[in-house]
Amino acid sequence: MPGTVYIIGAGPGDPDLITLKALKVIKEADTILYDRLVSPEVLEHAKPGAELIYVGKAPGNHEFTQKEINKLLYAKALTARTVARLHGGDPLFYGRGEEECLYLITRRIRCKIIPGVPSPFGAAAEHLIPLAGRDIASNVLFSTGTFKGGTKISVEEAMNIIRASHHSVFLMATSSYKNIVKASIIAKGPDTAVAVVEKATTPESRLVIGKLQELLGNEWIPSPPAIIFVGGGPRWRLEKINAQYY
Amino acid sequence: MPGTVYIIGAGPGDPDLITLKALKVIKEADTILYDRLVSPEVLEHAKPGAELIYVGKAPGNHEFTQKEINKLLYAKALTARTVARLHGGDPLFYGRGEEECLYLITRRIRCKIIPGVPSPFGAAAEHLIPLAGRDIASNVLFSTGTFKGGTKISVEEAMNIIRASHHSVFLMATSSYKNIVKASIIAKGPDTAVAVVEKATTPESRLVIGKLQELLGNEWIPSPPAIIFVGGGPRWRLEKINAQYY
Repeated sequence: MPGTVYIIGAGPGDPDLITLKALKVIKEADTILYDRLVSPEVLEHAKPGAELIYVGKAPGNHEFTQKEINKLLYAKALTARTVARLHGGDPLFYGRGEEECLYLITRRIRCKIIPGVPSPFGAAAEHLIPLAGRDIASNVLFSTGTFKGGTKISVEEAMNIIRASHHSVFLMATSSYKNIVKASIIAKGPDTAVAVVEKATTPESRLVIGKLQELLGNEWIPSPPAIIFVGGGPRWRLEKINAQYY
Repeated sequence: MPGTVYIIGAGPGDPDLITLKALKVIKEADTILYDRLVSPEVLEHAKPGAELIYVGKAPGNHEFTQKEINKLLYAKALTARTVARLHGGDPLFYGRGEEECLYLITRRIRCKIIPGVPSPFGAAAEHLIPLAGRDIASNVLFSTGTFKGGTKISVEEAMNIIRASHHSVFLMATSSYKNIVKASIIAKGPDTAVAVVEKATTPESRLVIGKLQELLGNEWIPSPPAIIFVGGGPRWRLEKINAQYY
């Protein structure tokens, strides 16, 4: 009888931001496939002898296509009891969790998704950036900054998104950073504060905040992975109120 | 010296969807304040003798105002070493995490936010509803269905949101359910599939999916807490493909 594949959100980077549910599966998995943004400490929970397969992108590495990952999950499920497939963040939020799961269940392999803390939620908690709520923003829109094939979001596309939502959050926003800043100035005005978080919840995490016009005048470009929060800068830092207590 | 207050996302309902980071704090907390949507099993991790204070709403209970909760967090931090404040889902996503944290840090109390799996991410994983991604939706917008003071989102407001985003997800969407369905029909057409999830990731979780015109013709109204996914029904169920494997 084939095993079960668990498609797991490993969270935004900090290895302690994994869920108990994910951890239980990782501890008993015979085979673990993992992505580039999954922390090495998470893999330390694997049982002795578990097979660990890196399927992320890296210079010099063979790059697995999504089709190869799907086939590998299927092949492993035929012989293992438990297969864990670890995604950074959440598998259904800019992951390919649904595609992987549909591939398996149409081939009669049991599959379950375990959600994870998405990266912008990790970044928000790390830097006290409210995402949505009463008196803050009644809605929040998450968009990619980079489409299929590497196409950057255009100034006009980003502007429409920012105009349509109270709080706009852009992921994979390094190459499209200038377009998003330009769009934000048009939509929100040059004095609006923006927060940019690089490598959220990892030891290299960095927060850059500033008014849009300052950021545009600047040569700086964020390093990937970068998240841009338009319309929700961290108030504690902007107002310089006892920032040392956070 | 005053203690530290941890404002924690306890996740969508399933007690195993709490993070390791949250669990470590809960285990050592002297005082725990918790909301209505926090699972009782989560509280079982508290150390013996820990003080547990329910600050959620419930019939017959004294209802804590946000101001009272803020003051209580402050008072407890003055005598305890570790105070845990548990929110359902994520504290910065329709919680009052930022407000609580700012109240404390301006009074020189150390405060940290620990993110949680937000409820729509729990619902999506439970029912294989993709949120955003390549070939699915390049953006996803989350909105409340109910504003401050209980005002329902209007058909026009919901319609603007649905038109502006690829995938629209409404939270707190029980009383505004009919308005959201009407708005979706105008924006997306009567044959569009919608998924409604009640009490996500709890034992009483329920998924209702259907075409918009069927849902509108129906007397049914979801029970709270309800989440509506417009434009992202679970394909495995719609296409009736080996649903027993998920």
